[in-house]
Amino acid sequence: MKFARIASNGPDGVTPRLVIVQPEQGRVIDLLIAERTRLERQGATRAAALRLATALFPSSMTAALSLGNKFLTVSREIAAEAHPEAILPLVDLQLLTPLDPPLLRDFTAFEQHVRSMSKREGRPVFKEFYQRPLYFKISPLNLIGHEQEVTWPNYTAHMDYELEIGLVIGKIGRNLRPEEALEHLFGVTILNDFSARDIQPSEMGSGFGPAKAKDFSTALGPWITTLDEIDITNLTMVARVNGEEWSHNTSASATWTFPELIAYASKGETIWPGEVLGSGTVGTGTGAEHGKQLQPGDIVELEVQGIGTLRNCLGKPEEPGWEPEPRKNAGL
Amino acid sequence: MKFARIASNGPDGVTPRLVIVQPEQGRVIDLLIAERTRLERQGATRAAALRLATALFPSSMTAALSLGNKFLTVSREIAAEAHPEAILPLVDLQLLTPLDPPLLRDFTAFEQHVRSMSKREGRPVFKEFYQRPLYFKISPLNLIGHEQEVTWPNYTAHMDYELEIGLVIGKIGRNLRPEEALEHLFGVTILNDFSARDIQPSEMGSGFGPAKAKDFSTALGPWITTLDEIDITNLTMVARVNGEEWSHNTSASATWTFPELIAYASKGETIWPGEVLGSGTVGTGTGAEHGKQLQPGDIVELEVQGIGTLRNCLGKPEEPGWEPEPRKNAGL
Repeated sequence: MKFARIASNGPDGVTPRLVIVQPEQGRVIDLLIAERTRLERQGATRAAALRLATALFPSSMTAALSLGNKFLTVSREIAAEAHPEAILPLVDLQLLTPLDPPLLRDFTAFEQHVRSMSKREGRPVFKEFYQRPLYFKISPLNLIGHEQEVTWPNYTAHMDYELEIGLVIGKIGRNLRPEEALEHLFGVTILNDFSARDIQPSEMGSGFGPAKAKDFSTALGPWITTLDEIDITNLTMVARVNGEEWSHNTSASATWTFPELIAYASKGETIWPGEVLGSGTVGTGTGAEHGKQLQPGDIVELEVQGIGTLRNCLGKPEEPGWEPEPRKNAGL
Repeated sequence: MKFARIASNGPDGVTPRLVIVQPEQGRVIDLLIAERTRLERQGATRAAALRLATALFPSSMTAALSLGNKFLTVSREIAAEAHPEAILPLVDLQLLTPLDPPLLRDFTAFEQHVRSMSKREGRPVFKEFYQRPLYFKISPLNLIGHEQEVTWPNYTAHMDYELEIGLVIGKIGRNLRPEEALEHLFGVTILNDFSARDIQPSEMGSGFGPAKAKDFSTALGPWITTLDEIDITNLTMVARVNGEEWSHNTSASATWTFPELIAYASKGETIWPGEVLGSGTVGTGTGAEHGKQLQPGDIVELEVQGIGTLRNCLGKPEEPGWEPEPRKNAGL
């Protein structure tokens, strides 16, 4: 199955609503309407049906996934017998980020990308890459969905994309082994880790890791595909800029497997439903690896087999603003 | 004023409740009870009073702060005329993390600490420290409050504390200048960035920044002190381990001012109510700077003038678990 969130306009503005997406039929099923009407047919009053349906299918996908198996079980029942009132044409809809992760870790699983970036920056490959799955954390407060514009902060002149798969956690776990990790994976989505390349080497060189280089806008979407629909060990991954293919690869090239990423994420800390783990960029999955960069107005499409296409347009650079005044080494 | 969250036991387990803390009187005011009883005295029914009071003072401090000035205005009115039913003795209560930040960035504002750690690790001071306020992100999913136990993950044998101030954002902002930053600061709390020192240099050397070295347990508390009560430019900061003083310094020694940290956090991204910015460790504010490390069962107290004392006990190491199998350089 495929799950997304759509923007719904009401008297108080836009509210996200959870939907099942059936792209081959060009339609979605609004989960709240479908469950409300199903409960009404079973004898519930409108108000009581709405109350229970809203508890099952709130605006937050993380809150919905936190219900455990119940979310998928009820969604399957709904898909089998959705009331016509709940079926909406996909073409009319604005898709939001398919979920609202409380934590977004971005791994680096693909050696080819790591080697290309090291070469570009004139430094050796981090030896730690071969020792364990490395990751940093992306702010989950600056996420954008399909067709939403990428903000262009004033501190960068070199904008790039990163072609990644986002692993969506569905079940809590801690200190997992790779062989039990997939039980905790709800599904996958596409992740575009837009990057300010000119400031990234300095942030990584500082020891503190990527921050402003990554946190301005991160795209997720267009929806989440559940594991039963795809083989995550071999998914074709493609990036196009203004319709021209720049990147083409497969998830099969990962040095660190997706179960290993999940197991490592759970070392010494609990993983929670709704968390997203980025796979890291697949080899050739950036402009930098081809000596190219993005411009305002460019349209970036990431396509992953079995999921779909995530499309975003680059915004205009923000006005210049305050800059920190460098300090002298005080020898303290 | 001082604000905290307490654990309240009910038929469905523990729920956090927001309180005003008056430590000098040894008491707290339960904001929900106080507002509910106030509305009842004004003619509201019990159910309606509870509904409105719960919307003002939910379990989430982030949700409450997101109401803007309303939160502080109503809290001040309540403090002036709290119903006896709302007043509870502080000594009986379990304090939780005073808030539930959606994002936790940890800066490094103090040169003395940066120099000491560089010297210890036998590397030069990161030159980037002098160029701008550096930070990394800590997982907000593994926070502990006052008197809660620190988990000890199985991958570390060298546990340490970090004596920091946590800046609690109260108002959205973007691309702020330092001179307007304090309008966006609600108050301050104490932050103990517990650290696995043995793996930290490798994580910082990898370019991806601290991850497992920092994310297992981070302490916040015991409460938030609002800005009107203190001068954040000169707060005495002390750390004690098992009653013995290991660290003593002041926030006045910061190389990067707190308004600069807030302004930098807002560069190219919106800051949100409930976010926490760690100041970074004050000089001498770790065991490592004194050649000492923590042991299971140790009690760490951080005291910051005008706030209070945050006390945590170190837990026992977790059982050994899965370890990633190193990869060979495939030359991809």
